Amino acid sequence: MVTNFDGPAAARLARALIHTARDGALGTLDANGYPNASHVATATAIDGAPIVLISQLANHTLNLGRDSRASLLFVSPDVDGDTNTRSRVSVVGEAQRIAEPSHERDRFLRRHPDAELYVDFADFSFWRLVPSHAHIVAGFGQIADVAGVDLLAAADLCETLAGVDSGACAHMNEDHLDALKLMAEVIGGAPQGDWRSYALDPLGIDMANGSNAVRVEYDEPVGASKPLIQALRTLTERARQNGQTI
Amino acid sequence: MVTNFDGPAAARLARALIHTARDGALGTLDANGYPNASHVATATAIDGAPIVLISQLANHTLNLGRDSRASLLFVSPDVDGDTNTRSRVSVVGEAQRIAEPSHERDRFLRRHPDAELYVDFADFSFWRLVPSHAHIVAGFGQIADVAGVDLLAAADLCETLAGVDSGACAHMNEDHLDALKLMAEVIGGAPQGDWRSYALDPLGIDMANGSNAVRVEYDEPVGASKPLIQALRTLTERARQNGQTI
Repeated sequence: MVTNFDGPAAARLARALIHTARDGALGTLDANGYPNASHVATATAIDGAPIVLISQLANHTLNLGRDSRASLLFVSPDVDGDTNTRSRVSVVGEAQRIAEPSHERDRFLRRHPDAELYVDFADFSFWRLVPSHAHIVAGFGQIADVAGVDLLAAADLCETLAGVDSGACAHMNEDHLDALKLMAEVIGGAPQGDWRSYALDPLGIDMANGSNAVRVEYDEPVGASKPLIQALRTLTERARQNGQTI
Repeated sequence: MVTNFDGPAAARLARALIHTARDGALGTLDANGYPNASHVATATAIDGAPIVLISQLANHTLNLGRDSRASLLFVSPDVDGDTNTRSRVSVVGEAQRIAEPSHERDRFLRRHPDAELYVDFADFSFWRLVPSHAHIVAGFGQIADVAGVDLLAAADLCETLAGVDSGACAHMNEDHLDALKLMAEVIGGAPQGDWRSYALDPLGIDMANGSNAVRVEYDEPVGASKPLIQALRTLTERARQNGQTI
């Protein structure tokens, strides 16, 4: 049934769905043990774990306070044809409240600038889904399970990059729009447009243009500025060459 | 916190979200008791209960076979701004496999013509979510609970209409496109377009134009052809008058 959908390809697509989504369906357990699906805005932590900003007044937050078991469904953008052809991944794990969300707050606001209005309200808090495993369905027939660890970047790679991410995004958006455009369109296969980066992590770079988003991953994980710059240069150069041969 | 969002208005918006959605997030319980959110194509039964067509090979179907507790999240179409402004309803209840889905099959295929390709595969079956209650969030601050019974039409009204629904839709689409357009645009507030009906029920009529959909409800529930025709005429006439005064 599954064709051309090996482990690494499935994990890569799962990461792309998680990183490019603006929202997802949060599965929690209600007071009666029923599974509850609710709408949430999402972003990612530097290691790729999904994060949400939710109100203590909302049912799903009360549910997580009682039972941390949770899932998050991410679905690729709507299509005109059969909705079952949309790619989607269900990530299952434990939701943890983030006690001091400094970097997560910054990444979330880059993805959701409108959340600036309420991010600091006393009833809002950031939560992280620690993924144990995921199940991906890429249209009909392409189905795979992905281990939680394969959704995340190694912890030792994240420490330095967490301090680099914001500045590197701003730098790319100020001085290297041509590189972003090449990576998004030639490597990522995204439609033509003005692409801006909203997040970087040890495995790849996330870019948006209006409501479209695309993720491009480097050839190898990076854990510091120099390898990051080299990885982005390599991708840009390859895109430039591939773009010319089209 | 809640303004202008009384019980009937909340129930009406919940029904509109359920009836106009093409898909939703299905909450089920996995083998370890974790809540799982998965992507499903959706339609409605004649009484307004959500129905799904799912494969016995899929995780969510295995989950429902073990534990019928389920929820379905319906979200209004994507917007350019804050995704938290989208209206959504989480419907909670028991999922029941439909043993003989004759009318449900017909309604589902009218909403999802592409499903014709696999609807009769041996591993696919229709399930109905019997709603016990729902929780609706219409953007910020407009939050309400809705009883399951308020999502559904009374059973005695459904029996005759189940036999009328398909033919009445076809008749409206063949001979009364002007009436559909008036109802969708003037009463439903939908954008201009070629509106076709894909479902009728005792409480209202569901119309689609490409990926847009709109539901308009009658002034009173109907349970037979004559009151249905009268209800549609009343709405059309009101739309004509309102449209002229704009």
